[in-house]
Amino acid sequence: MSHSQQPCAACKLQRRKCTQECIFAPHFPPDQPQKFANIHKVFGASNVAKLLSELPATHREEAVNSLAYEADARLKDPVYGCLGQISILQHRLKQLHMDLDAAKQELVKYMGQQQQQQQQQRSADLRGTAAGDGARGERAAGDVQGVRAKPTTSSSSYQS
Amino acid sequence: MSHSQQPCAACKLQRRKCTQECIFAPHFPPDQPQKFANIHKVFGASNVAKLLSELPATHREEAVNSLAYEADARLKDPVYGCLGQISILQHRLKQLHMDLDAAKQELVKYMGQQQQQQQQQRSADLRGTAAGDGARGERAAGDVQGVRAKPTTSSSSYQS
Repeated sequence: MSHSQQPCAACKLQRRKCTQECIFAPHFPPDQPQKFANIHKVFGASNVAKLLSELPATHREEAVNSLAYEADARLKDPVYGCLGQISILQHRLKQLHMDLDAAKQELVKYMGQQQQQQQQQRSADLRGTAAGDGARGERAAGDVQGVRAKPTTSSSSYQS
Repeated sequence: MSHSQQPCAACKLQRRKCTQECIFAPHFPPDQPQKFANIHKVFGASNVAKLLSELPATHREEAVNSLAYEADARLKDPVYGCLGQISILQHRLKQLHMDLDAAKQELVKYMGQQQQQQQQQRSADLRGTAAGDGARGERAAGDVQGVRAKPTTSSSSYQS
Protein backbone atom coordinates (compact mmCIF):
# COMPACT_ATOMS: atom_id res chain seq x y z
CA MET A 1 0.00 0.00 0.00
CA SER A 2 1.31 3.49 -0.81
CA HIS A 3 0.15 6.96 -1.70
CA SER A 4 -1.79 7.91 1.48
CA GLN A 5 -3.81 4.75 2.09
CA GLN A 6 -5.19 4.59 -1.49
CA PRO A 7 -4.87 1.16 -3.12
CA CYS A 8 -2.34 1.01 -6.02
CA ALA A 9 -3.64 1.07 -9.60
CA ALA A 10 -3.09 -2.71 -9.92
CA CYS A 11 -5.10 -3.61 -6.79
CA LYS A 12 -7.79 -1.07 -7.66
CA LEU A 13 -8.28 -2.60 -11.12
CA GLN A 14 -8.30 -6.14 -9.71
CA ARG A 15 -10.53 -5.06 -6.75
CA ARG A 16 -8.08 -6.52 -4.30
CA LYS A 17 -6.95 -5.31 -0.91
CA CYS A 18 -3.61 -3.49 -1.34
CA THR A 19 -1.28 -4.65 1.45
CA GLN A 20 2.11 -3.38 2.67
CA GLU A 21 3.70 -6.27 0.77
CA CYS A 22 1.93 -5.54 -2.54
CA ILE A 23 4.49 -6.16 -5.30
CA PHE A 24 2.71 -3.75 -7.67
CA ALA A 25 2.29 -0.77 -5.29
CA PRO A 26 5.81 0.77 -5.71
CA HIS A 27 5.41 0.78 -9.51
CA PHE A 28 1.72 1.44 -10.19
CA PRO A 29 0.56 4.58 -8.34
CA PRO A 30 -3.24 5.06 -8.16
CA ASP A 31 -3.03 8.20 -10.33
CA GLN A 32 -1.70 6.21 -13.33
CA PRO A 33 -4.41 3.58 -13.89
CA GLN A 34 -3.72 3.18 -17.63
CA LYS A 35 -0.16 1.94 -17.12
CA PHE A 36 -1.33 -1.15 -15.24
CA ALA A 37 -4.46 -1.58 -17.37
CA ASN A 38 -2.34 -1.97 -20.54
CA ILE A 39 0.12 -4.36 -18.88
CA HIS A 40 -2.77 -6.37 -17.42
CA LYS A 41 -4.47 -6.62 -20.82
CA VAL A 42 -1.36 -7.85 -22.62
CA PHE A 43 0.58 -9.85 -20.01
CA GLY A 44 -1.92 -10.59 -17.25
CA ALA A 45 -1.48 -9.51 -13.61
CA SER A 46 -0.33 -12.92 -12.36
CA ASN A 47 2.42 -13.23 -15.02
CA VAL A 48 3.69 -9.74 -14.19
CA ALA A 49 3.59 -10.43 -10.41
CA LYS A 50 5.57 -13.64 -10.99
CA LEU A 51 8.12 -11.89 -13.21
CA LEU A 52 8.61 -9.04 -10.72
CA SER A 53 8.90 -11.40 -7.74
CA GLU A 54 11.77 -13.21 -9.50
CA LEU A 55 13.72 -9.96 -9.98
CA PRO A 56 15.72 -8.03 -7.38
CA ALA A 57 13.79 -4.96 -6.18
CA THR A 58 16.35 -2.64 -7.82
CA HIS A 59 15.46 -3.94 -11.30
CA ARG A 60 11.68 -3.99 -10.95
CA GLU A 61 10.98 -0.40 -11.97
CA GLU A 62 12.96 -0.89 -15.21
CA ALA A 63 11.12 -4.15 -15.86
CA VAL A 64 7.72 -2.49 -15.26
CA ASN A 65 8.64 0.34 -17.64
CA SER A 66 9.74 -2.05 -20.40
CA LEU A 67 6.58 -4.14 -19.91
CA ALA A 68 4.47 -0.95 -20.14
CA TYR A 69 6.28 -0.01 -23.35
CA GLU A 70 5.75 -3.47 -24.86
CA ALA A 71 2.10 -3.57 -23.80
CA ASP A 72 1.49 -0.16 -25.36
CA ALA A 73 3.20 -1.29 -28.60
CA ARG A 74 1.08 -4.48 -28.70
CA LEU A 75 -2.17 -2.56 -28.17
CA LYS A 76 -1.24 -0.09 -30.92
CA ASP A 77 -0.09 -2.85 -33.30
CA PRO A 78 -1.74 -6.16 -32.27
CA VAL A 79 -0.06 -8.12 -35.10
CA TYR A 80 3.57 -7.04 -34.70
CA GLY A 81 3.82 -5.15 -31.37
CA CYS A 82 7.42 -4.22 -30.55
CA LEU A 83 8.60 -6.34 -33.47
CA GLY A 84 7.18 -3.72 -35.83
CA GLN A 85 9.57 -1.16 -34.34
CA ILE A 86 12.46 -3.64 -34.45
CA SER A 87 11.75 -4.27 -38.15
CA ILE A 88 11.65 -0.51 -38.87
CA LEU A 89 14.92 0.03 -36.98
CA GLN A 90 16.58 -2.91 -38.76
CA HIS A 91 15.41 -1.54 -42.12
CA ARG A 92 16.82 1.92 -41.27
CA LEU A 93 20.10 0.32 -40.15
CA LYS A 94 20.36 -1.57 -43.44
CA GLN A 95 19.66 1.66 -45.36
CA LEU A 96 22.24 3.59 -43.34
CA HIS A 97 24.83 0.83 -43.90
CA MET A 98 24.19 1.15 -47.65
CA ASP A 99 24.45 4.96 -47.46
CA LEU A 100 27.69 4.67 -45.49
CA ASP A 101 29.13 2.16 -47.98
CA ALA A 102 28.20 4.48 -50.85
CA ALA A 103 29.80 7.45 -49.07
CA LYS A 104 32.96 5.39 -48.42
CA GLN A 105 33.14 4.32 -52.08
CA GLU A 106 32.71 7.96 -53.12
CA LEU A 107 35.49 8.92 -50.69
CA VAL A 108 37.82 6.25 -52.11
CA LYS A 109 37.07 7.59 -55.61
CA TYR A 110 37.88 11.18 -54.61
CA MET A 111 41.03 10.10 -52.77
CA GLY A 112 42.15 8.22 -55.90
CA GLN A 113 41.41 11.24 -58.11
CA GLN A 114 43.29 13.51 -55.72
CA GLN A 115 46.33 11.22 -55.75
CA GLN A 116 46.21 11.12 -59.56
CA GLN A 117 46.00 14.92 -59.74
CA GLN A 118 48.90 15.30 -57.32
CA GLN A 119 50.99 12.90 -59.45
CA GLN A 120 50.07 14.81 -62.62
CA GLN A 121 50.94 18.09 -60.88
CA ARG A 122 54.31 16.70 -59.80
CA SER A 123 55.00 15.43 -63.34
CA ALA A 124 54.00 18.83 -64.78
CA ASP A 125 56.25 20.60 -62.27
CA LEU A 126 59.14 18.31 -63.19
CA ARG A 127 58.55 18.91 -66.93
CA GLY A 128 58.40 22.66 -66.26
CA THR A 129 61.70 22.57 -64.38
CA ALA A 130 63.34 20.49 -67.11
CA ALA A 131 62.02 22.83 -69.84
CA GLY A 132 63.30 25.86 -67.89
CA ASP A 133 66.75 24.28 -67.62
CA GLY A 134 66.66 23.54 -71.37
CA ALA A 135 65.75 27.15 -72.22
CA ARG A 136 68.51 28.45 -69.97
CA GLY A 137 70.92 26.02 -71.72
CA GLU A 138 69.88 27.27 -75.17
CA ARG A 139 70.30 30.89 -74.10
CA ALA A 140 73.76 30.12 -72.69
CA ALA A 141 74.81 28.45 -75.98
CA GLY A 142 73.59 31.51 -77.87
CA ASP A 143 75.63 33.77 -75.66
CA VAL A 144 78.76 31.72 -76.36
CA GLN A 145 78.11 31.89 -80.11
CA GLY A 146 77.51 35.64 -79.85
CA VAL A 147 80.76 36.18 -77.98
CA ARG A 148 82.64 34.15 -80.58
CA ALA A 149 80.82 35.80 -83.49
CA LYS A 150 81.82 39.30 -82.57
CA PRO A 151 85.64 38.87 -82.66
CA THR A 152 85.32 36.86 -85.87
CA THR A 153 83.30 39.61 -87.52
CA SER A 154 85.42 42.39 -86.15
CA SER A 155 88.62 40.54 -87.04
CA SER A 156 87.34 39.97 -90.55
CA SER A 157 86.49 43.65 -90.77
CA TYR A 158 89.90 44.50 -89.47
CA GLN A 159 91.48 41.98 -91.82
CA SER A 160 89.61 43.17 -94.88
CA MET B 1 -7.63 -30.01 -33.91
CA SER B 2 -4.91 -30.72 -36.42
CA HIS B 3 -1.92 -32.96 -37.02
CA SER B 4 -3.59 -36.38 -37.16
CA GLN B 5 -5.86 -36.23 -34.11
CA GLN B 6 -3.12 -35.07 -31.74
CA PRO B 7 -4.07 -32.10 -29.55
CA CYS B 8 -2.19 -28.88 -30.39
CA ALA B 9 0.73 -27.81 -28.18
CA ALA B 10 -1.46 -25.19 -26.44
CA CYS B 11 -4.25 -27.63 -25.52
CA LYS B 12 -1.72 -30.29 -24.52
CA LEU B 13 0.01 -27.89 -22.10
CA GLN B 14 -3.31 -26.69 -20.67
CA ARG B 15 -4.68 -30.28 -20.58
CA ARG B 16 -7.73 -29.23 -22.55
CA LYS B 17 -9.64 -31.00 -25.26
CA CYS B 18 -8.48 -29.68 -28.64
CA THR B 19 -11.57 -29.04 -30.78
CA GLN B 20 -12.04 -28.28 -34.49
CA GLU B 21 -12.54 -24.64 -33.50
CA CYS B 22 -9.38 -24.40 -31.37
CA ILE B 23 -7.89 -20.95 -32.04
CA PHE B 24 -4.39 -22.17 -31.14
CA ALA B 25 -4.29 -25.36 -33.23
CA PRO B 26 -3.33 -23.79 -36.62
CA HIS B 27 -0.36 -22.01 -35.01
CA PHE B 28 0.91 -24.35 -32.30
CA PRO B 29 1.58 -27.82 -33.73
CA PRO B 30 2.14 -30.58 -31.14
CA ASP B 31 5.75 -31.01 -32.25
CA GLN B 32 6.67 -27.48 -31.13
CA PRO B 33 5.70 -27.43 -27.44
CA GLN B 34 8.26 -24.74 -26.47
CA LYS B 35 6.73 -22.09 -28.72
CA PHE B 36 3.44 -22.13 -26.81
CA ALA B 37 5.13 -22.71 -23.42
CA ASN B 38 7.09 -19.45 -23.76
CA ILE B 39 4.08 -17.45 -24.94
CA HIS B 40 1.97 -18.95 -22.15
CA LYS B 41 4.58 -18.03 -19.51
CA VAL B 42 4.89 -14.43 -20.63
CA PHE B 43 1.47 -13.47 -21.96
CA GLY B 44 -0.90 -16.12 -20.59
CA ALA B 45 -3.06 -18.38 -22.77
CA SER B 46 -6.30 -16.43 -22.24
CA ASN B 47 -4.71 -13.10 -23.27
CA VAL B 48 -3.26 -14.69 -26.41
CA ALA B 49 -6.57 -16.39 -27.27
CA LYS B 50 -8.38 -13.03 -26.89
CA LEU B 51 -5.79 -11.20 -29.01
CA LEU B 52 -5.95 -13.85 -31.78
CA SER B 53 -9.76 -13.94 -31.78
CA GLU B 54 -9.82 -10.17 -32.41
CA LEU B 55 -7.57 -10.49 -35.48
CA PRO B 56 -8.53 -11.70 -38.96
CA ALA B 57 -7.34 -15.30 -39.54
CA THR B 58 -4.86 -14.08 -42.18
CA HIS B 59 -2.91 -12.06 -39.59
CA ARG B 60 -2.87 -14.61 -36.77
CA GLU B 61 0.25 -16.51 -37.81
CA GLU B 62 2.25 -13.24 -37.96
CA ALA B 63 0.86 -12.25 -34.56
CA VAL B 64 1.78 -15.64 -33.04
CA ASN B 65 5.31 -15.36 -34.46
CA SER B 66 5.81 -11.86 -33.06
CA LEU B 67 4.41 -12.95 -29.68
CA ALA B 68 6.79 -15.95 -29.68
CA TYR B 69 9.69 -13.60 -30.48
CA GLU B 70 8.70 -11.20 -27.68
CA ALA B 71 8.19 -14.01 -25.18
CA ASP B 72 11.58 -15.45 -26.03
CA ALA B 73 13.21 -12.02 -25.60
CA ARG B 74 11.48 -11.51 -22.23
CA LEU B 75 12.58 -14.91 -20.94
CA LYS B 76 16.16 -14.23 -22.02
CA ASP B 77 16.15 -10.70 -20.60
CA PRO B 78 13.43 -10.42 -17.91
CA VAL B 79 14.23 -6.77 -17.18
CA TYR B 80 14.25 -5.30 -20.70
CA GLY B 81 12.85 -7.97 -23.05
CA CYS B 82 12.47 -6.67 -26.62
CA LEU B 83 13.28 -3.18 -25.39
CA GLY B 84 16.89 -4.28 -24.90
CA GLN B 85 17.12 -5.04 -28.61
CA ILE B 86 15.39 -1.77 -29.50
CA SER B 87 17.93 0.13 -27.37
CA ILE B 88 20.85 -1.69 -29.04
CA LEU B 89 19.44 -0.96 -32.51
CA GLN B 90 18.82 2.72 -31.62
CA HIS B 91 22.39 2.99 -30.33
CA ARG B 92 23.75 1.44 -33.54
CA LEU B 93 21.59 3.80 -35.62
CA LYS B 94 22.95 6.80 -33.71
CA GLN B 95 26.51 5.53 -34.24
CA LEU B 96 25.92 4.95 -37.96
CA HIS B 97 24.40 8.44 -38.33
CA MET B 98 27.57 9.85 -36.76
CA ASP B 99 29.77 7.72 -39.07
CA LEU B 100 27.76 8.84 -42.10
CA ASP B 101 27.99 12.50 -41.07
CA ALA B 102 31.76 12.12 -40.63
CA ALA B 103 32.07 10.44 -44.06
CA LYS B 104 30.01 13.24 -45.65
CA GLN B 105 32.19 15.91 -44.03
CA GLU B 106 35.28 14.09 -45.29
CA LEU B 107 33.73 13.96 -48.78
CA VAL B 108 32.98 17.69 -48.71
CA LYS B 109 36.62 18.32 -47.68
CA TYR B 110 37.96 16.18 -50.56
CA MET B 111 35.59 17.77 -53.05
CA GLY B 112 36.79 21.22 -51.92
CA GLN B 113 40.45 20.16 -52.21
CA GLN B 114 39.82 18.70 -55.66
CA GLN B 115 38.16 21.93 -56.85
CA GLN B 116 41.10 23.93 -55.47
CA GLN B 117 43.61 21.65 -57.23
CA GLN B 118 41.68 21.91 -60.50
CA GLN B 119 41.70 25.73 -60.22
CA GLN B 120 45.45 25.71 -59.45
CA GLN B 121 46.02 23.37 -62.43
CA ARG B 122 44.06 25.69 -64.72
CA SER B 123 46.02 28.72 -63.45
CA ALA B 124 49.31 26.85 -63.92
CA ASP B 125 48.27 25.83 -67.47
CA LEU B 126 47.38 29.44 -68.28
CA ARG B 127 50.73 30.67 -66.89
CA GLY B 128 52.51 27.94 -68.86
CA THR B 129 50.78 28.97 -72.09
CA ALA B 130 51.60 32.66 -71.49
CA ALA B 131 55.24 31.82 -70.70
CA GLY B 132 55.48 29.66 -73.86
CA ASP B 133 54.15 32.53 -75.99
CA GLY B 134 56.71 34.90 -74.38
CA ALA B 135 59.59 32.53 -75.10
CA ARG B 136 58.49 32.15 -78.71
CA GLY B 137 58.28 35.98 -78.95
CA GLU B 138 61.81 36.35 -77.59
CA ARG B 139 63.17 33.75 -80.03
CA ALA B 140 61.43 35.50 -82.93
CA ALA B 141 62.94 38.84 -81.88
CA GLY B 142 66.43 37.23 -81.78
CA ASP B 143 65.94 35.83 -85.27
CA VAL B 144 65.00 39.31 -86.56
CA GLN B 145 68.07 40.82 -84.89
CA GLY B 146 70.28 38.04 -86.31
CA VAL B 147 68.93 38.64 -89.82
CA ARG B 148 69.52 42.36 -89.49
CA ALA B 149 72.98 41.95 -87.91
CA LYS B 150 74.44 40.01 -90.80
CA PRO B 151 73.98 42.60 -93.55
CA THR B 152 75.13 45.37 -91.22
CA THR B 153 78.36 43.51 -90.42
CA SER B 154 78.94 42.50 -94.02
CA SER B 155 78.19 45.97 -95.33
CA SER B 156 80.59 47.47 -92.80
CA SER B 157 83.23 44.92 -93.86
CA TYR B 158 82.59 45.81 -97.48
CA GLN B 159 82.67 49.50 -96.61
CA SER B 160 85.92 49.30 -94.65
